[in-house]
Amino acid sequence: MVSPKRVFNFSPGPCCLPLEILEQAKEDLISYKGCGMSVMEMSHRNKEFSEIWTNTTNGIKKLLDVPDSHLIFFFQGGATLQFSAIPMNFLGAKKKMNYLTGGHWSEKAKEDAQSLGEVVEAWPNSKPPFTCIPEPKDWVIEKEAAYFHYCSNETIGGLTQFDFPYEALPADMTLVSDMSSEFCSRPINVAKYGLIYAGAQKNAGPAGNTIVIVRKDLIKKENIMKITPAMINYQKILEAPLYMYNTPCCWAVYMSMLYFDYLNKKGMKFIEDMAILKAKMFYDFVDNSQGYYQNIIHPKFRSRMNIPFLVKGGDAACKKFVEEARKFNLLELSGHRSVGGCRASFYNAMPVEGVANLLVFMKKFMQENP
Amino acid sequence: MVSPKRVFNFSPGPCCLPLEILEQAKEDLISYKGCGMSVMEMSHRNKEFSEIWTNTTNGIKKLLDVPDSHLIFFFQGGATLQFSAIPMNFLGAKKKMNYLTGGHWSEKAKEDAQSLGEVVEAWPNSKPPFTCIPEPKDWVIEKEAAYFHYCSNETIGGLTQFDFPYEALPADMTLVSDMSSEFCSRPINVAKYGLIYAGAQKNAGPAGNTIVIVRKDLIKKENIMKITPAMINYQKILEAPLYMYNTPCCWAVYMSMLYFDYLNKKGMKFIEDMAILKAKMFYDFVDNSQGYYQNIIHPKFRSRMNIPFLVKGGDAACKKFVEEARKFNLLELSGHRSVGGCRASFYNAMPVEGVANLLVFMKKFMQENP
Repeated sequence: MVSPKRVFNFSPGPCCLPLEILEQAKEDLISYKGCGMSVMEMSHRNKEFSEIWTNTTNGIKKLLDVPDSHLIFFFQGGATLQFSAIPMNFLGAKKKMNYLTGGHWSEKAKEDAQSLGEVVEAWPNSKPPFTCIPEPKDWVIEKEAAYFHYCSNETIGGLTQFDFPYEALPADMTLVSDMSSEFCSRPINVAKYGLIYAGAQKNAGPAGNTIVIVRKDLIKKENIMKITPAMINYQKILEAPLYMYNTPCCWAVYMSMLYFDYLNKKGMKFIEDMAILKAKMFYDFVDNSQGYYQNIIHPKFRSRMNIPFLVKGGDAACKKFVEEARKFNLLELSGHRSVGGCRASFYNAMPVEGVANLLVFMKKFMQENP
Repeated sequence: MVSPKRVFNFSPGPCCLPLEILEQAKEDLISYKGCGMSVMEMSHRNKEFSEIWTNTTNGIKKLLDVPDSHLIFFFQGGATLQFSAIPMNFLGAKKKMNYLTGGHWSEKAKEDAQSLGEVVEAWPNSKPPFTCIPEPKDWVIEKEAAYFHYCSNETIGGLTQFDFPYEALPADMTLVSDMSSEFCSRPINVAKYGLIYAGAQKNAGPAGNTIVIVRKDLIKKENIMKITPAMINYQKILEAPLYMYNTPCCWAVYMSMLYFDYLNKKGMKFIEDMAILKAKMFYDFVDNSQGYYQNIIHPKFRSRMNIPFLVKGGDAACKKFVEEARKFNLLELSGHRSVGGCRASFYNAMPVEGVANLLVFMKKFMQENP
């Protein structure tokens, strides 16, 4: 099959997907495995789709070595819907929740939690720009809170918590993490978490599927708020056949299945090493550009996935940079509309070739615009 | 392009899609209009996807002649998530809501509403099997309620409210309808409704996109419950660029765009006439089978979309019917697991050919299993 021209797409998500899974999807599109129906046409309860659903679950289990204590649920609505689902399901009789906020997405999660209970800020008075996370000894932790929430990688700000200091929390504190933009880019010690959630549209599929990995014993009917919408009531999901409560976004789950097959063939170690390598290429170049390009994050917390950077000359220079890059098929390099600047995202599906092409362009741009 | 073997798929949803839109999707899959990216890889804020989003909105507007007083929103989470979203956004200072329940889905909608306020049952003590809707003069209507909710077509039970008796409600009562399984199968007088909602995975796309048509002046910040998840807070949607609050299921929206283009080429009149014709073929055959096949719904309320029926000989006969039909490429004819029996769904994408093949099979089955 001859593929049409492809670009290097540095979008923060939805983002580039591996060409081979797109090719597979194309082949399957009209009749999945010769069954005479597209995956988009199947009842979500039929035999073929039940297999797709189960294979996707098993693909995650294998890739992340998910222990039997934990269940895997798929939702619609993105990480954003889980911002409410988590307090609705976990707050229970406790009144408080711990939130560590170090960027846009943890702020958003906190706001939805605040409409449902009392939030204790682990990092009080944190405010942008977030360039490093304080030492755990300085965190404020409410011991009686229902859980501790953090976002492991801030997609907009580019701040990552690589080694979560589990020992900083009381031993029985439920740990919850929004891992959306770094999910499946490095191993996770799943057993340490009460709940991990991630929109698939970064490293694990297109938009439309949100993955929740939850410790089964934390789902307790008596803890779930009465006002919780049925489709995010974890108890109802638990009781549904295959943990499928209502019609899911079948196509997105199918694409995730293909993506997990692809990742499992590579293995977590390879995936992480590749991510480290791509990020190092980029940061080394930026740090050696004599300040022409700048990333302000403390090296210990620099994201491998989303790298915001500034171009010498401010907003006008950033705009020119993004426009020129487009001519070289290097796309989606604008910073988030809330912060401006530039940003490059290097997810699993971004080939090293893409990073290399970007660096060659950056060198050229710097020389031509001194 | 040669299409592989296709089946006739009578699934209640997700369900058959027009072959020509699947073929278009296949062609676009790896590089949409030569842009070098799949629709699945695009940032939801980029130029190409913004156009897809806007075209989808305009396609609905055109097909259903949506007046300017109404906005079109797209959500994830199916109609099920709107079961909560509607009371959360509309209940406000009023304490009560009117619900007319005539089947599984209106029951589900009512349950989520009951967790948020007081439901007044328009059809008190209604219970299965639902074979006809009582005369409006017998409805119980709370005049001070925030709105009146009904499901226009019950996918499982096959009961349809064709001509809603608007005059039975107080003139200022907000009318809300779950139209999921008959949306875009016949014209709607949109102006009469405060809110119409529908999962697209019946007549208007694959699963993953839920369409909400809402009268703009009903969205009032002061009416929205504090506990409402951000992603179903209509005020936040209203304020978001293109009414897109967070990452939508981009692929499902794109498929809906193709589907609306397809429907607009046919026009609403043609679509409805075709639906009437297909349903008539089927009901006429059933009614003339001397009770071999049975549909228990009162003729005035018989669905054109979802037709539950029984086969002489009870459960065993129904099971045999479904299995034999499969050999003739007639698929997904089981009734819902909660009610058993058989069911055939004739959505927009079901060709007349499919209905004819089903009838020929039914005749044969009846002769061979007297």
